This record gives sequence, structure tokens and C-alpha cells, in this order.
Amino acid sequence: MSRGEGEIHVLFTPSGRQGDIARGTNVLDAARHLGVDLDSICGGRGICGRCQVQLGSSKSIALDPDKVTNPNLVELNYRGARPLREGNRLGCQMEVLGDVVIAVPPDSQVHRQVVRKRPEVPDIDVDPVVRLYYVEVPESVLGSDAASDHRRLLTALEDQWSLTGLHLDPRALPELQTSLIEGKSAVTVAIHDEKDITAVWPGFRDRTFGVAFDIGSTTIAGHLCDLLTGEVLATHGEMNPQIRFGEDVMSRVSYTMMNEGGAFELTRLVQQAIDSAIGELVVEAGAGRDEVFEVVLVGNPIMHHLFLGLDPTPLGSAPFNLATDEAVRLEAGALGLDVHPRGKVYVLPCVAGHVGADAAAAMLSEAPHRNEPIQLLVDVGTNAEIVLGNSERILAASSPTGPAFEGAQISAGQRAAPGAIERVRIDPETLEPRIRVVGGDHWSDEDGFYDEIAATPVTGICGSGIIEAIAGLFLVGIVDEDGAIQGDAATDRIVADGRTSSYVLWTDPQILVTQGDVRAVQLAKAALLAGARLLMDHFGTDTVDQIRLAGAFGNHIDPKYAMVLGMIPDCDLGSVSGAGNAAGSGAIMALLSGAARREVEELVRRVEKIETATEPRFQEHFVTALGIPHKTADYPHLAAVVDLPARTASTGRRRRSRRKP
Amino acid sequence: MSRGEGEIHVLFTPSGRQGDIARGTNVLDAARHLGVDLDSICGGRGICGRCQVQLGSSKSIALDPDKVTNPNLVELNYRGARPLREGNRLGCQMEVLGDVVIAVPPDSQVHRQVVRKRPEVPDIDVDPVVRLYYVEVPESVLGSDAASDHRRLLTALEDQWSLTGLHLDPRALPELQTSLIEGKSAVTVAIHDEKDITAVWPGFRDRTFGVAFDIGSTTIAGHLCDLLTGEVLATHGEMNPQIRFGEDVMSRVSYTMMNEGGAFELTRLVQQAIDSAIGELVVEAGAGRDEVFEVVLVGNPIMHHLFLGLDPTPLGSAPFNLATDEAVRLEAGALGLDVHPRGKVYVLPCVAGHVGADAAAAMLSEAPHRNEPIQLLVDVGTNAEIVLGNSERILAASSPTGPAFEGAQISAGQRAAPGAIERVRIDPETLEPRIRVVGGDHWSDEDGFYDEIAATPVTGICGSGIIEAIAGLFLVGIVDEDGAIQGDAATDRIVADGRTSSYVLWTDPQILVTQGDVRAVQLAKAALLAGARLLMDHFGTDTVDQIRLAGAFGNHIDPKYAMVLGMIPDCDLGSVSGAGNAAGSGAIMALLSGAARREVEELVRRVEKIETATEPRFQEHFVTALGIPHKTADYPHLAAVVDLPARTASTGRRRRSRRKP
Repeated sequence: MSRGEGEIHVLFTPSGRQGDIARGTNVLDAARHLGVDLDSICGGRGICGRCQVQLGSSKSIALDPDKVTNPNLVELNYRGARPLREGNRLGCQMEVLGDVVIAVPPDSQVHRQVVRKRPEVPDIDVDPVVRLYYVEVPESVLGSDAASDHRRLLTALEDQWSLTGLHLDPRALPELQTSLIEGKSAVTVAIHDEKDITAVWPGFRDRTFGVAFDIGSTTIAGHLCDLLTGEVLATHGEMNPQIRFGEDVMSRVSYTMMNEGGAFELTRLVQQAIDSAIGELVVEAGAGRDEVFEVVLVGNPIMHHLFLGLDPTPLGSAPFNLATDEAVRLEAGALGLDVHPRGKVYVLPCVAGHVGADAAAAMLSEAPHRNEPIQLLVDVGTNAEIVLGNSERILAASSPTGPAFEGAQISAGQRAAPGAIERVRIDPETLEPRIRVVGGDHWSDEDGFYDEIAATPVTGICGSGIIEAIAGLFLVGIVDEDGAIQGDAATDRIVADGRTSSYVLWTDPQILVTQGDVRAVQLAKAALLAGARLLMDHFGTDTVDQIRLAGAFGNHIDPKYAMVLGMIPDCDLGSVSGAGNAAGSGAIMALLSGAARREVEELVRRVEKIETATEPRFQEHFVTALGIPHKTADYPHLAAVVDLPARTASTGRRRRSRRKP
Repeated sequence: MSRGEGEIHVLFTPSGRQGDIARGTNVLDAARHLGVDLDSICGGRGICGRCQVQLGSSKSIALDPDKVTNPNLVELNYRGARPLREGNRLGCQMEVLGDVVIAVPPDSQVHRQVVRKRPEVPDIDVDPVVRLYYVEVPESVLGSDAASDHRRLLTALEDQWSLTGLHLDPRALPELQTSLIEGKSAVTVAIHDEKDITAVWPGFRDRTFGVAFDIGSTTIAGHLCDLLTGEVLATHGEMNPQIRFGEDVMSRVSYTMMNEGGAFELTRLVQQAIDSAIGELVVEAGAGRDEVFEVVLVGNPIMHHLFLGLDPTPLGSAPFNLATDEAVRLEAGALGLDVHPRGKVYVLPCVAGHVGADAAAAMLSEAPHRNEPIQLLVDVGTNAEIVLGNSERILAASSPTGPAFEGAQISAGQRAAPGAIERVRIDPETLEPRIRVVGGDHWSDEDGFYDEIAATPVTGICGSGIIEAIAGLFLVGIVDEDGAIQGDAATDRIVADGRTSSYVLWTDPQILVTQGDVRAVQLAKAALLAGARLLMDHFGTDTVDQIRLAGAFGNHIDPKYAMVLGMIPDCDLGSVSGAGNAAGSGAIMALLSGAARREVEELVRRVEKIETATEPRFQEHFVTALGIPHKTADYPHLAAVVDLPARTASTGRRRRSRRKP
């Protein structure tokens, strides 16, 4: 680029974009000219304060305040909603007079990054689905140049914002009329998906919100975000009211099959719950329902179908047929949600009949497709949703683990609610247990534990608790490689229970680990591991580089015990971790970013779906996986850090003599 | 095209499309291959009967029945909704065996023409906005090829109909699920605007309807059409319920300005009236409300704004600002219309602040833009909407005629309702009147007239009646060129009325033509003519080739009397005619044809809007037009057929001596 007469050189950081522009150009115009991402709602009128920049320096261009104009009256008098920070200048008012470096702080970028607290997951790049534009509409004239409110608005948006091809929702015409009068021809418009004008307000406005929901079988969690900054302003969780029709989702499918209008009732319940959660969130965030423009929803296939008013019964039996595997874009009103009258819903696509929109959201958040290491992403519920892949290929399957991991089918099992035993350790010497309960901060051998359970008594054991209990019993030799509880183990916590034995994990109330419990967990974990192995076969790998355990269960469990039990394949324990609320994070990403929506839609389309039910190898893996790992060769990483019991030659039974406490 | 091995030559009439195709191809496939417009809903399964063809002959290819297969079992057993007509064959079953001519009857074309009864207006080319497609969806499979209902439907539509890029309205997903079950995987879908799947039914279906409304200030007229054939199945008219807030639209604007919520109330009234009219229409046509997929609406700008829920008050004063001048596409539910849940509304665009969607519809129907002759198209209401142009240019203006032509401001004036005098003749010898009333078939000097008025007594005089009365009085010399009623005219029907005179048109009850009436009509007609002259100036013409008088008033009036009075410029009387229900016809065209919608939108965009209020020449024309035509030079065509009174030199007054009867 050759520099013209009266031009100066401007370099923007952090983008590195630079070029020559006319001396006296303001920074906002310079940024637009050079394609720099500098935010503005008011279009350069010194109202919104979103174009704040700093003077910077670089090796090539030294800092020199004289290279820009001093603050003008607009800047000196600026008192907008977004205060001018120390050292910042208003980009729309400051003009460049000489070669200069301008730093655009993250807050001043439209496509800013929202930094997430957990370092292992990528930050969210905001790509707003709804943007606000302040525009001054020329008044109507009498004569052959007369133009309607509608046309004058479109012309002003083109003249002042270079926006073309816009479509005004006709339902916004009445508010366009009143806003032009109230705002004395100055209005702010909301533009959805870069093309639809969905709302008009008089004068300047810079508030627009959205809500992302992860609809779990048990709980519904929602996050209200500022759609412009990406900030999470409020979070709300509540029980899924459908739970009265069954703890696990399959019970709810049964309910819909057995009862005329059952699906309709479940739909109404979940839609009402979402709507009431929106009510809580807007109050907490100090927003109005009519300021909510976007609602993003994810859930497993059955929740997905129920909240969309679709019949879930085909998901209950082969061929596990989804009504749709596309992302769904709807008016919020069509789902009974009371938000802005033109607010929209975006529902992430389901991957397959048993791999839901929650799994799609988790993939978006955990991003196996963006990285080279092979990641195994597991979300355990009634069915385990299993994803395996990397930047080259992504495979997904579901595996029929049944509800054991959710505490069902376990003698003292319960949901992971306060009072449930969630952590268990067995002392290798005394064979005595230590426990911790959901909602408590202490182990049972720590001070304060009994105060906790006085307030919240122990009521049962949840999925992570039973996993850790059985893994712990295996490590101390009470449970053998085949899953048999050793009736002659040297502890009086072993009690006879018919022809089998149980381990008394707790006495008040009595919580047993029964032989039946061990069998139920073996079946469940074998299904999970077999699913993972099947995907590994298809991918063509014997090992995985990372394992991420998603969902409430995945975040409660200690990865080591999951591996000891053989729920998951061997992996460096440092690379196995809970994925936090991956589905919720993915929902938030889709709320804040149109690019993220396109990414997840493209991702879901290219997922290779593996059907466990029709693959003979799944059965083979399942049988092999029923036992508890004993071959060091299969679990080298685990064996390096845990003393795995050696298998006895004859029965797989080893005897140890332990003193009783 | 060189003919390949085993190929034969097929010529389709009337399209003239021809080509070589494989011997044994069925006619429907051949038609598709050659781009021939041959209808089908069932896709060639012998269900719908829409692909009926005939064997034809031409000079190049002689008729030979052996050149096609004999009727097969499907054809012999065909008993579809559309019976096989004598001599017709099912195109999807009959295969071609030798060179052959195939005639496609109009009924078998998708883009058929609906022949209108009036020869001077173009036929309507049907280009269905909603089309139905029968499709057999493969069943879902278990395994990695599993596909959702949604995806299998899209794939089937692509495989069986070559339709791509379709979008399924997510609200139709539940009925997709149930239809696949009920229809045993065979469904019919409705596709809107060539891209949106808006409805799904089990099995085969071939019914879809639409309604076109012309919302006048006085009456609301609706037509229910078969969207596939273009046939008008039912017509319904009713009073606009807003009339209780004022006969003329400006009174209604005043009402909205004076009353909080006034506009809302008027909106509710007109929407309810449209909805109830839909109810009447579907009953008459034997259809269901949920079979109505499209509602088209036209109306003057104030009606347009009121039924869209827009504030009409800006239309009441300069700069006469429209909220929108675009066509409006909306969900029918948003206007409170109970039709199919995904039924849509299309509202034609308004042209300018006083030139409404009804004028746009009239332009579409009268099609001045398609022809070389310069057409003047006038729709007279409270404001006259005036269009002038031809294929090169189209100009439009409105002229403030006031409500005189609607019977307001006339001493005995009333709306054109039963009992209103609508036709008047004055005998040049006796100076006695003859009249005809709205709803009657006889003139007052014919047998049967008094029986008619015994049933429907004379109640007043409507717009066309007062025009003909004044024009008649002018022709017999009772009214002079300046509009003065001659108090000394030789008939005792002239009575003194203060300082002026009146003519007693009727005695039971007494209906007078007063001097005030003449003045009111002069003002109105001068405004109309001045508007037309202004457009002629802009167009650069002194004459027009055609005059079309639209609206109820335009169809009641005798064009000759309108010209005698000087309402319209001179023109060959054979080229002046009522335009029938031009706005209603245009609304029907937009209902039946996507191409017509694109045409009217493009047309409205290129109309040159002339604002009478700001043009000094309008005032000049207005003053000149106040008198009644007397210069033969100005009205050569009229003067050739009517004996126009000669102007007296001094006062413009001529005296005649007539005997009284």
C-alpha cells in the first residue's frame, strides 16, 4: 500500500491490522476501514462507550500523545452506561494526527473472548446472535421522495451502518412507528442472525440478554447472559418436574406410552419449568423478560423431544428413531416461553437416537474435533453417551448402561442428593470404610462430619459412591476380579446375605454393598467400557490420550476409581478429569455465538454414528469387560500408580488375613 | 439433438417442447425430462389423477394409438378424486413406444391459466404459492445409517421430487411423526414459497385453499380459492364493522386520534370481521379452516394500517407517512386469523400514503405496465387513487376528492346500498327524470319499477346517481357550465331554495339536487380531473388511450356521464369502462401466483409517486376543472357522440322553453 498525501499509518493491536488512512480520521472509522473489530452501538455518536481504545506503542511506532487529538467536548462530557476507564479514550471522538498504535481492549471487541475459569477448556469467542444498532432516521418528507418509516429505517441502517439485505419483522412495525415519535427519529434496533430486525426502541439502548438451558432428566440448569458482553449474570437450577413420573427418562417414555396425552403433559411440565426458571433468572439479573431475546436449549434425546412437543416413544425401542437431527430454530412463544415477543429459541441438534443435544453441546465445549489428541468424552446417565475422536474423525455411540450409575437398581441406591454417600475409601489394613456425603465437606474420620450428618442424615448411596465402594473393596481384596464378595474376608463388616455376602458400609441407617449391587455395577460399567472399546476399534486405536467425564456423575467420581473398576480404558490419570458442566458450557457457547452454532451443526453432521445394538463386537467387548481389571498389560498407566491385586490362579480368589478393628 | 439407440421422439402441446427419450418412458417422466409443465401430486403413483394427457397429432407426427402402451391395471383401476376424463390417459402410467404427440390439457398444468370472464383483463396465470407433494418415506433403520424422520423426509423429497434446500417448520415435526405412522410411511407435505414445509398429512391429500380479501372502507369482500386449480369456490361480502365509527375512513382516523386505544379497537374489529368471513367462506366451499393456508389482503392505506395493527394517524396529515411500503408476509395467527396453524398472510404493498394496496392490486389486475396504450386507472373513494402509465412508465397520485362521490356531503346522499338512486336520466324534452335504484332491475318508467320500490323504498341518492343527475341536468341546460342551477328553467321540478334553486329528482320521499350538491360534486370531480391532468403532465401526454374506473363507484357509473361532467379526461368512449372489482381480482392473482406477487412488488417499487399537495400545477388544473366541459376541443371524442350544450357568451346561461308535462 503506498501512502497517499495527508495519510498517516495506524496499527491496531492485538489484531495487528494496519494501514494508511487520512489524517484527522477518527479511530472508529479507521478501525472499520481496516476491518478491525471495534465495538459500537451508537455508531460513533459518543453515547455507548463501547469503542474505548488505548494509545499503545510498538517497536515500529513510538508512543506520542500528540499523534491524536485531545479529548473533545463529547468525550469530556461522556457519561454513558459504560464508564470511560482510566487511560481509555473514546475511539469515535479521538482523531489520529500522526503514525500511531491503537490498542483495542478485549471489552471493546464485538467478538471478544469470554475467559472460562477452567484452564483445560477453550475460552468462548463471542459472536453475538443479536446485535443492537443505534440509528438516526431522517424525517419523512412530503412529495415524490416520500418514504415509509420502514424504508427510511432500512436506508438509515445502510447509510450509517453499511447494513444491507435486512428484513424487518412486520410485527415490529407498530413499535417502529411509536419509537420514531418517542425517540425523536432516533431509535435502536435489534438485529437477529445478522438479517432480521426483530425489535425497535426509542433512542439509545444497550441491553439484550439470553438464557442457556441444560435440561437434564433430574435437574434443569439455566444461565442468563448478557448477549453483547458474554457475561454470565445469573444461574439457576431446579428439579425437572417430570421426575414425579419416574427418576429415569425411560420411565417417562413408559408413562407417555401408557397414558393418553402423557407426552403432552410432560411437555407442558418441562416448558413451564423452563419458563419459570427464566422468571427467576431475570429477577436475579435485574433484567426484564422482554429483554430476553434468545433461549438456547440442550438435553438428552428424550428431554429434547419432550420440550419440543415431540413424541419420545420411538426413542424407547429399536430403531431408536429421532424426529429430527437438525438444530431447531423456533419462536420462543411456540414453546410457551414468555420472553421478548420476537425472542427466539435455538435447540442444538441431537447426534443420534441415544446421543442427544447435550452430547452435542458437550462436544462443542470439550472440542475433541479441534485437537490432535484422541479424546474419549463420556456422559453417563441411563444411557452412556460416548464420543471418541480428534480433529480427523469423531465417532459417537450410546451404550445401554441402565440406571445403576444413577443409583437405581442398587440396594441402598439413590440420586446424588444431600445425604447420599458419594465418596468411599476402604482402608487396606483395617478394611474399614471412610465416606463423604453429598453436601458435606468432611470425610467420616474428620472432625465436623457428625455435625454435618446430624443436620443432613445419611440416606443412601449414589452412583459415584457405589463405584468407589466397589473399586475400594476390589483394591483391598474383598471383591475379586470376577466381582464376587469374599464371604470369608477378615472383617466383621462382611455379613451373609442368603447365598452371597454383603459389606456393611454404614450402620445408621444400614447401607450395604450387596452382591447384587456389584453385579448391577458390573453390567453397567461393562456396557460403558464396551461402548468405548467399540469406538476405539472403529477409530483404529488401542489407547486414548484424554478422558473427560461429563455430567453430574462424571464430576462426582474420582477418575482413578472409575479406572480401577474398569469403567473406562487405561489412560494417564493426569489426562482423565471431570468435564464440569460440559453440556451447559456448550449451551452457553451456542447462546453467545453464531459461529459456535454453525460449528456444532457441522460437527454433528460429520459425527460417525456407531450403533452398539447391531455390532457383534460390542457383545464381545461387553463379556470381556464384565470382570474387574487384573491384567497390568491392559492398564499400564493405572498399574503404575495403583497396586492392583494379583489374580489367583484357580478361582480368582485371594485370601488375606486382616485384623478386625 | 441426435437420436440415440432405442429413443423415440415426443412432442408436447401446447408448449411445443419436444425431444428424444428412451422408448418405454412414461409420459410424466418424459414431461419432466423435457421441462414440460405437467402436474402431479402423487409423483407418478396413479393416485392423484393430475397428470391426465391426451394423444394428439400434428403435421409432423401422425396419431397412432399403438405408439403408447394400453391402459395398465393402475390406470384401469384408477378412482382418484379427479376422475379420468373421456379420452384422457394417466400420464404417469402410459408409456411411449413410438414417435408421438402428447397434449397437456390446461387442467393438467401446474401453471395453468384461470380464464377470467371479462375479455379485457388478462387471465390469471396460476403459480401456486403452496404445493402438495406425496412422498413415500423409507422406514428408519437401525445402525449407522439411521436417519431421523426429518432427514428421511428431506431425502425422499429429493429422491422422488428433486426438491432440495427445503426447510421444515419445526412446529410440523409432531405431525410428521404421527403422519408417518398413520400413513404407513406415505405422507403428503405442503410446501410454501417453494422452500418451507409447513404441513404434513398421512397418506395422499390434494386439498389446499386460500382466501383473498379486499378490505374496503364500506365492505369487506372475500374469495376462497382452490390454491392448486385457481378455481374460486366461494365469495362472501359483508359490511366493514368499523363503519359504526364513521362512513368514511378519515372519520375513523379521527376516532383513533381522539380515543385512547381507538386504533386497537378498529384493528380488532376488522380482524374479527375477516376471521368471521373466513368462517363463512369455508362453510360455503365445504372446506375446513385448517385447510386454508394463505390469506391475501388488500385495502386502502388506512385499512391496510388498521388490519396490520399499525397506527393510521400519520396518514391523516402531511407528510402522509406510511409505516411500510413493502409487501408484508406474516403468520396468519399474528393477525388473529384462525386458519391452518402455519397459514400465512400476504399483504400487498401500499404505493404511497394515499395510494393503497388496493391500488397496487388494481394495477396488477388491470396491468397498464404490460401494455403500450396509456391507461388511466382511477379508483374513487374518499381519496381518488389515480394511476397513469404503460409499459414504459407508471405514475400514481391520490387526489383529495373528499367523500362526495360516496354520497357524503350531498343533501340526500347515501352509500350505494339498496334504495339508493344509482342511475338518472333527464329527458331533454320534458326535463323529467328517469331513475333506477340499487338492487332494482327496472328504470322508473318501466313496468315493475313500482313493485320493486314497494319492497325496497327509495331512500336517497348515491355517488353515481348524483353524477348522472348533474351531468343529465347539464345536458338539458338546467345546470350551466359553471354549475349554476337555472332557477327559471321551464319545469316545475325547479324549486327555490333560499337564494339558489334545486331540482326535485324524486318526491316520495323528496330527493333534491341542490345547488350545494352541485358545488360539492364540482369540487370532487375537479380534484379528480386535476390529479389525472397532473399525471398526464408528468407523463408528457395530452391524451390517454384507455380509462378504467375501479371500485364500486366506478362500476356503477356510466362512463359517458362521468365524461360529460368532466370527471375524467376525454377518451374514446369505447375505451372507457368499469374495471370490475379490479382490486379484488388483483388480490386473487396474488393469492394464486407467486409470480404475481413478485410482479406487483417490483411494479410498486418503480411507480413514480406524484404528490398533488406540493405541485402548484395541481392547483391550476383544479381551478380549470371546476367548470363543466364546454370546449369541444377539450373533449373531441365526447363531442362526437353527445350534443354538448353551447356556452352562452355573457353569463354562460342559456334559456330554453320547455313545456311542462
